[in-house]
Amino acid sequence: MKERDLIQHIKELTTQKADGLVQGIGDDCAVVTKDQENVWLLTMDTLVESVHFDCSWHPPYLVGRKAVSVNVSDIAAMGGKPVFVLLSLGLPKNFDPEWVSTFNKGINEACSQYGCLLIGGDTVCSPEKVSLTLTLIGESPQDQVVYRHGACPGDNIWVSGALGYAAAGLDYFRTGKGHGAPCLYETSSQYPSEIAPCITAHLDPEARTGLGKALAQAGCIHAMMDLSDGLATDLAHLCQQSEVGARIAADKLPGSTGLAAAASLLGEKRRDWMLTGGEDYELLFTASPQDNEKIIEIAARQSIRVNPVGIITEPSQGVVLQECGPDADREQSITFQGFDHFS
Amino acid sequence: MKERDLIQHIKELTTQKADGLVQGIGDDCAVVTKDQENVWLLTMDTLVESVHFDCSWHPPYLVGRKAVSVNVSDIAAMGGKPVFVLLSLGLPKNFDPEWVSTFNKGINEACSQYGCLLIGGDTVCSPEKVSLTLTLIGESPQDQVVYRHGACPGDNIWVSGALGYAAAGLDYFRTGKGHGAPCLYETSSQYPSEIAPCITAHLDPEARTGLGKALAQAGCIHAMMDLSDGLATDLAHLCQQSEVGARIAADKLPGSTGLAAAASLLGEKRRDWMLTGGEDYELLFTASPQDNEKIIEIAARQSIRVNPVGIITEPSQGVVLQECGPDADREQSITFQGFDHFS
Repeated sequence: MKERDLIQHIKELTTQKADGLVQGIGDDCAVVTKDQENVWLLTMDTLVESVHFDCSWHPPYLVGRKAVSVNVSDIAAMGGKPVFVLLSLGLPKNFDPEWVSTFNKGINEACSQYGCLLIGGDTVCSPEKVSLTLTLIGESPQDQVVYRHGACPGDNIWVSGALGYAAAGLDYFRTGKGHGAPCLYETSSQYPSEIAPCITAHLDPEARTGLGKALAQAGCIHAMMDLSDGLATDLAHLCQQSEVGARIAADKLPGSTGLAAAASLLGEKRRDWMLTGGEDYELLFTASPQDNEKIIEIAARQSIRVNPVGIITEPSQGVVLQECGPDADREQSITFQGFDHFS
Repeated sequence: MKERDLIQHIKELTTQKADGLVQGIGDDCAVVTKDQENVWLLTMDTLVESVHFDCSWHPPYLVGRKAVSVNVSDIAAMGGKPVFVLLSLGLPKNFDPEWVSTFNKGINEACSQYGCLLIGGDTVCSPEKVSLTLTLIGESPQDQVVYRHGACPGDNIWVSGALGYAAAGLDYFRTGKGHGAPCLYETSSQYPSEIAPCITAHLDPEARTGLGKALAQAGCIHAMMDLSDGLATDLAHLCQQSEVGARIAADKLPGSTGLAAAASLLGEKRRDWMLTGGEDYELLFTASPQDNEKIIEIAARQSIRVNPVGIITEPSQGVVLQECGPDADREQSITFQGFDHFS
């Protein structure tokens, strides 16, 4: 069973209408009414040792930071401001108090950075592996929330930052090149410098809260989500929710040049890293072409690059990648080709 | 490291003051401002296969129900009404779709029963065991919330229902007597009838939402929490938060007669089941003796028995159990002698 079939199954069992519920299952966050003008955004993400992080190369301080960042990223993707955090921490019986203490520092410092506060949770014994679930509660004026639905044929598709860095960073450790690397708490400066941005993207991603909020406030974004499972899968989700298709231009994917060093070290896998690698935690959003300049300006004010990578099409066209140069006629479907937990 | 030391460590790292935060770490739920009159109650509980439930005797439908009930119990313990649920479901790669489907039905039917709605969450791959984390969001008028702090010397200590049933039910399966028992989805009618209430208490506990709400509305409850780790540990938490001591009368613990059959089948462990067994999901609360009649009346309207089990004392006296009959002079400390995940 695919992850999306499982989520669909859960969704079908559940009534999706209730007093105070604005958006149920199917977006980055659930949205519920707070007061007359504002809503709460609610999201939950679990990280499991040996599935989502590997203690042999992921320092506990950065595991803590990452657990917060990946949840905050869901809040950012709807234009919200993170406010409160709940943490359920599953630890093996013989856990290392030093690991936990450093992990907790990571959680708390990331909370400070994003302006949110740990207010509760649970601690349980876990059979062997560390397991952490965070619930993030964000806030937004109701009329500024940006959903996955809302993309229109003709919209430009935008991506913030660069793609594929985190996947290349993970590859660096998985292939064994990064084994025996020092356990760093603060920086990746001791890794080969040409690969350092990839290491940082994997170990310590940053949620795009400032950009997400600024885009939402501008009022011109039709649909938005964060990139966690890779562009191919996440764009397919956005298209499904918006009932549209999409065409991505291969030569517009941002990050290819920056990944050259990683490719020469680890093999030419740039296309895979950028399309299907996952864990980018960048923002994927669509807007009318007439708002191009406005969007570039907003992003510049946040010192973040944004790039148009394709256009929204009619639903019948699916989600496709268009090659460039002499192969420009060639299109291939990339629908849901990214990361799936159960594949 | 004890579980409470771990929680204390996390609490110390965290600022406990912020706009909109009424109560942070240290109670059954975190409490945050919703609107001018109302607050949200937020709680999170994780159940891990082979730690909190055993698939060899716990039918998936009842695992789903229990996951909801134990979280709702935290909302009930503060006098709130459960409203929204987030579920993070960790499944091994080769999970059984039938198990998951039946589990989901249990989640949804328990949500209907308690009047709350599943609105989001996460699905992840877990290395071997099923792991589930729920976040429950409840609601209450701010002036009706009942906390763990607030108990006063001289208060009567009350317990709803009976103690020790769930622990005896668990013992029945753990000792092997219940192995090979049919996997029941709805009832425990196929178990030996004298032990059936214990089986139900373990497999399918019920949160005391009606009673919790009614007590909170009455305005006479000084402190309240739910019993999840056993009376000895939970009362110690309540006393710590209220800065008081407590004396429990051994002959007042409710449930002893009902546990006689279990004791003759499994050995005389009634004292342990009732004091330290855990998972009762009954309400523990304190109130002035002048409100005794009011409390009995409220409980009777909910068709639930409540029993006074002791009194709140000065903080220097600790949490003690007083024997009855010829041993009436004998007191023993029972502070934090209940279930601890990491002991």
